[in-house]
Amino acid sequence: MAEKLYEELKSPSRILLGPGPSNIYPRVQQAMLQPVVGYLDPYILGILEDTASMLRAVFGTSNQLTLAISGTGTAGMDASFCNFVEPGDVVVVGVNGLFGDRMADAARRCGAEVVPVEAEWGRIIEPAAIEATLKKHKKVKLLSLVHAETSTGVLQPLEEASYLARQHDALFLVDAVTSLGGQKMAIDERGIDICYSCSQKCLGCLSGLSPFTAGERALAALQKRSRKVQSFYLDLSLISSYWTGSHAYHHTASCIMIYALHEALAVLMDEGLDKSFERHQRHGDALKAGLESMGLKLHAQEGHRLSMLTSVQVPEGIDDVRIRNRLLHEFGIEIGGGLGPLKSRIWRIGLMGGSSTAENVLLLLSALEKSLSREGFQTEPGAGVAAALKSLSGAEVRP
Amino acid sequence: MAEKLYEELKSPSRILLGPGPSNIYPRVQQAMLQPVVGYLDPYILGILEDTASMLRAVFGTSNQLTLAISGTGTAGMDASFCNFVEPGDVVVVGVNGLFGDRMADAARRCGAEVVPVEAEWGRIIEPAAIEATLKKHKKVKLLSLVHAETSTGVLQPLEEASYLARQHDALFLVDAVTSLGGQKMAIDERGIDICYSCSQKCLGCLSGLSPFTAGERALAALQKRSRKVQSFYLDLSLISSYWTGSHAYHHTASCIMIYALHEALAVLMDEGLDKSFERHQRHGDALKAGLESMGLKLHAQEGHRLSMLTSVQVPEGIDDVRIRNRLLHEFGIEIGGGLGPLKSRIWRIGLMGGSSTAENVLLLLSALEKSLSREGFQTEPGAGVAAALKSLSGAEVRP
Repeated sequence: MAEKLYEELKSPSRILLGPGPSNIYPRVQQAMLQPVVGYLDPYILGILEDTASMLRAVFGTSNQLTLAISGTGTAGMDASFCNFVEPGDVVVVGVNGLFGDRMADAARRCGAEVVPVEAEWGRIIEPAAIEATLKKHKKVKLLSLVHAETSTGVLQPLEEASYLARQHDALFLVDAVTSLGGQKMAIDERGIDICYSCSQKCLGCLSGLSPFTAGERALAALQKRSRKVQSFYLDLSLISSYWTGSHAYHHTASCIMIYALHEALAVLMDEGLDKSFERHQRHGDALKAGLESMGLKLHAQEGHRLSMLTSVQVPEGIDDVRIRNRLLHEFGIEIGGGLGPLKSRIWRIGLMGGSSTAENVLLLLSALEKSLSREGFQTEPGAGVAAALKSLSGAEVRP
Repeated sequence: MAEKLYEELKSPSRILLGPGPSNIYPRVQQAMLQPVVGYLDPYILGILEDTASMLRAVFGTSNQLTLAISGTGTAGMDASFCNFVEPGDVVVVGVNGLFGDRMADAARRCGAEVVPVEAEWGRIIEPAAIEATLKKHKKVKLLSLVHAETSTGVLQPLEEASYLARQHDALFLVDAVTSLGGQKMAIDERGIDICYSCSQKCLGCLSGLSPFTAGERALAALQKRSRKVQSFYLDLSLISSYWTGSHAYHHTASCIMIYALHEALAVLMDEGLDKSFERHQRHGDALKAGLESMGLKLHAQEGHRLSMLTSVQVPEGIDDVRIRNRLLHEFGIEIGGGLGPLKSRIWRIGLMGGSSTAENVLLLLSALEKSLSREGFQTEPGAGVAAALKSLSGAEVRP
């Protein structure tokens, strides 16, 4: 053991095409070499302000309370519930995958009375089902949905749900962990009251920060609380006092991580938001075209498939883990397996942030073809790559 | 604004002699350039294991549950209370500074009945006061103390408190945010049941991870819980399932940050724990000798002063902020101001991790002498540096 400890780290080079993290932009890693400063240094306070401005642009909001929580997207989820929900509140949660399930769990841990609106893992939550549920309850405090369900590859429509939430005077909370930066969020336009995300997917940063925004209706609920938020660490009033105004000490925000997020957002601004959204869509489309041409079946409901994360069924008789191990050890490619009821049944292929390139689409399809054929699943040689190339050339762009 | 966003970051070089962060070891920042891998990659699982082993060495424990929580030290505090305390539990908290105060706050947010044992900000919590309080209550679930009170510079004795906690069948929780790596923790020897720390002080890493350990008695309490932990993100059973055994997904642990912590721990192991403790003591002693020779008064109770953080009183008629601004803008040195009732009354000078060097002691004393004299506080020229040099030479090492 002793010898091992003092060696310098030498991590393998991976092409990260799983559900996250994605490969970090080189500019972002370089930014982490900058000297660290204190958490109240005038320099970092300026960086915080710029970071919040860029986050507002990516979220599509003018919300003053827009910042990054010092934790992963899961911390953002916890913060969303523990700040805006109090014991006894009725919370309606869309559950059509692991992350909806977790939202329900997090809300219950805050003492909420959780009413799940369920759908099969791979289908959207139907607005009609949301409406029926909201109508059944007198006073719903909050409606929460996962925008991009990372466990299934489904893109949830938000417009009708937002309208319904407002009609029933409920706050509307959205998990944008997988979508932010790769998909238009339009927080203000869509009337989303609370939204959280992560840093390591479509933003191409390291994980550990949770971009977060909340609007006026949410803040009013926060001010009306009858008791303190149950977590000191995730108390948004305290966190936002550090980010803005008095810059009061709450916790030692990690300057180096904020540098990284700032740089990742600058990369995104340089590319342009619309271009990033198009890029994610284009490569996701090409991947799907390729997979289908190889005779594989996409898992998510048609018309509601994510661009940045594609779920595809493991063919009959093929061992999920053996294929993933081949991809990792022979090609250095990571893809994700299924979770919960989809364990061993699907693969989850991410094309997020810096990992969303045409080269990665072609490489993945080639490597998958080879790995599948070695495990006995024959596809027409080159069919996947050919279909992807055709899609990339613009001949067959999916809606 | 637009122009500003796309510029590459260029942060100023600071000498960080405040209450944390300290300057990051260059080896640690270099490690952050390593390629990122997935959170279930065989490579990172090995790194997690090594990191846990090194943390055990630094904590002085054989506790299986030893890991780093994905958040700052404040997250470690929250986790300590929300996992081991349930509504209605009686919790005795030593309050002699901001961090004791926060512990009490965090415990109350978990529904605990908090009984504070108070002392002046600058003095230790007397074991006799702890004993009297424990005796007054029939069933105390947990006793918590801050080992190194960062807001006052006081080092809390732990041995008697640990004995008392065990005698009253209470768990013993210790905040080691400022002490870990710079001071012997001896978790097992001292019978500490739960302990949390941070990465950005004596470990010389970036902030954002909270080293954490819990022993058998604590785990037994965890298993006996009647309800789920109120935070999903900080649920230790879920976090530890990711670190060990099944490596079940809980949140996307930040490989890059774990690389950084691993490297910081390797730096510490290379130096040797005892040597690090001695170094922190030697430089803290020299600083104190210098400050006193300049006619300044140390704030913390004699015999109970921290090595890695020295609190010194702001002289009568001197403006706290003006001096700190001079140090920052003229010398690039950050020191800390006072918090709460000590605001404007003390400075807090840290010599932690990579920042704990003889050069920094001499530089700080020189810069402080110059800054004070410009503000009208005259000291004998060179007296501080001379006393520090004498102390460093071993002629006057304090106990």
